[in-house]
Amino acid sequence: MRVAILAHEKFPDRAKTALGVLRYADYEATAVLDRETAGNRVTDFVPDVQDAPIVEGMADLEPGSVDALLIGVAPIGGGFEESWREDVRTALEYGCDVIAGLHYFLEDDDEFARLAAENDCELWDVRKPPADLTVSEGVAAEVDADVILTVGTDCSVGKMTVSMELARDAREAGYDAAVIPTGQTGIMIEGWGNPIDRVVSDFTAGAVEEMILEKGDEHDYLFVEGQGSIVHPAYSAVTCGILHGAMPDKLVLCHVAGRDAIHGYESFSLPSIPAYVDLYERLAEPVAEADVVAGALNTAGLEADAAERAVDEYGDALGAPATDVIRYDTDPLLEALL
Amino acid sequence: MRVAILAHEKFPDRAKTALGVLRYADYEATAVLDRETAGNRVTDFVPDVQDAPIVEGMADLEPGSVDALLIGVAPIGGGFEESWREDVRTALEYGCDVIAGLHYFLEDDDEFARLAAENDCELWDVRKPPADLTVSEGVAAEVDADVILTVGTDCSVGKMTVSMELARDAREAGYDAAVIPTGQTGIMIEGWGNPIDRVVSDFTAGAVEEMILEKGDEHDYLFVEGQGSIVHPAYSAVTCGILHGAMPDKLVLCHVAGRDAIHGYESFSLPSIPAYVDLYERLAEPVAEADVVAGALNTAGLEADAAERAVDEYGDALGAPATDVIRYDTDPLLEALL
Repeated sequence: MRVAILAHEKFPDRAKTALGVLRYADYEATAVLDRETAGNRVTDFVPDVQDAPIVEGMADLEPGSVDALLIGVAPIGGGFEESWREDVRTALEYGCDVIAGLHYFLEDDDEFARLAAENDCELWDVRKPPADLTVSEGVAAEVDADVILTVGTDCSVGKMTVSMELARDAREAGYDAAVIPTGQTGIMIEGWGNPIDRVVSDFTAGAVEEMILEKGDEHDYLFVEGQGSIVHPAYSAVTCGILHGAMPDKLVLCHVAGRDAIHGYESFSLPSIPAYVDLYERLAEPVAEADVVAGALNTAGLEADAAERAVDEYGDALGAPATDVIRYDTDPLLEALL
Repeated sequence: MRVAILAHEKFPDRAKTALGVLRYADYEATAVLDRETAGNRVTDFVPDVQDAPIVEGMADLEPGSVDALLIGVAPIGGGFEESWREDVRTALEYGCDVIAGLHYFLEDDDEFARLAAENDCELWDVRKPPADLTVSEGVAAEVDADVILTVGTDCSVGKMTVSMELARDAREAGYDAAVIPTGQTGIMIEGWGNPIDRVVSDFTAGAVEEMILEKGDEHDYLFVEGQGSIVHPAYSAVTCGILHGAMPDKLVLCHVAGRDAIHGYESFSLPSIPAYVDLYERLAEPVAEADVVAGALNTAGLEADAAERAVDEYGDALGAPATDVIRYDTDPLLEALL
């Protein structure tokens, strides 16, 4: 599928979804839409992902050159920015599907719904949970696959990226591994999944369990994309539901070098790394015995020397192999996990 | 408000909502509807609650003798039983409001919606969350009130009952105490509240925080009705969201004497009582430092001697005062809490 990726005024640093799709998805990127960086190419900014031209809008692309428009940015609050309307309109008039992970559902927008019907296009609101979810039965551990869950010290520490990198490298090493996507970017990359942060709270664990049961006998390893943090003042419910719903065999603790307070909630200090390990393991244990057997540290903000030192210190604090999965290779983690 | 309480074929033992309302709500109970026990009175079965006659259906009551029909039973799955339709229809024709805590919303039922409109009645689906909920800001601790949260070793161990008993006895002792209701029975009793198990998972903590902020400067003590258990395979997300959203000052651990496995999930053993204390306190700590300072044990299944021994043992395991709040008085707990 050929996609145009909308990332107006935010590419690359504030377009996490666009970057994730360029890096991990099987889509062919026809273009990135960003009216601020138009005229450049993706690899002018980010060297190690799929390249594509950056253009001002859908109107710069030929009808028939794209199959879908994908909204690759997520504004705070998840609303739809009216300045994107013209691009979505043009995409639908071109006959493209539109894929979005906003809290605002495109299918509830009268104009988009009408244009989609007229042009026989699909509006895929990936953040809209399926209607048939229910409570967990506590049986995810019964699948054949080993279940590996990424957990974090905070939001935005790289759980999605780590899940994708580990699954990809495991597959390249000859293992049968799949990702269980739980958030909008993961779902867009994989083309399926339940948006766990949007399900009814009683069904949080059940919505994860349903995915594990669906894929767990088809693969040897499942990498479950974690969400939030078990001590996050706002999002810990989602984290806890995933932990118990997935019934993991192993945990990978993700962290950002130097972060010492909850992002956006700076009055809350992060516990120590050993405290996280202890808390995740103890909380998992009555439902599924799972140890933190590896760590992933995002060192993007550090120079080479400092990054190496930070990874070493992180591994020592964890008592387990650690790496930065973007900066270095993932072998030490895969050895501990597979 | 004068209410008729529907509890067909389930009164009293399997009508938890009906009993909760009879025991704690300010409503005047005109009748209980139960076609199986009709002809008896409430106090023939349960001595220590508001009395009322038990009748076969709404048609046995005079029009004008009741203000609302309240659905006092919750079938597995939360569906509407068609055998109740005639009673709801009659209630609406009498001009009564109808209050229900089902997953099936009465307002989405065409016949009930039409009859309610024709007769100027309200359909109150207490399990339908308000549309304006959002994520927690992590500020519940800023209210003036001391926040006391009931937590549990499992579902159905008495968290709602303990919250109600403690708040009532605190008020009777002259303290300014209120309940923060989080489940359908609590919401029916109090006449307001957010059904936390039905909110979007991302808003679990936020939906609790919103209630604490609303009431926290009006009272000296808030008793927050807890839900589920932090190690429940299906419902731990809700528990965790309430724990962090409420930012409690103190915790009361609720348990049923003799229970050793998760109800309905019997392959999952309960951790030891000290393990629960440790887990709840450690999980709360990074967001709000809260100790388990009291325990409530449901000893309904035990003879007097055994009950006393069980409470003593429970208190020893907790290292805190404990009692059965229905069987004995709540003084030892209130002393530790207020």
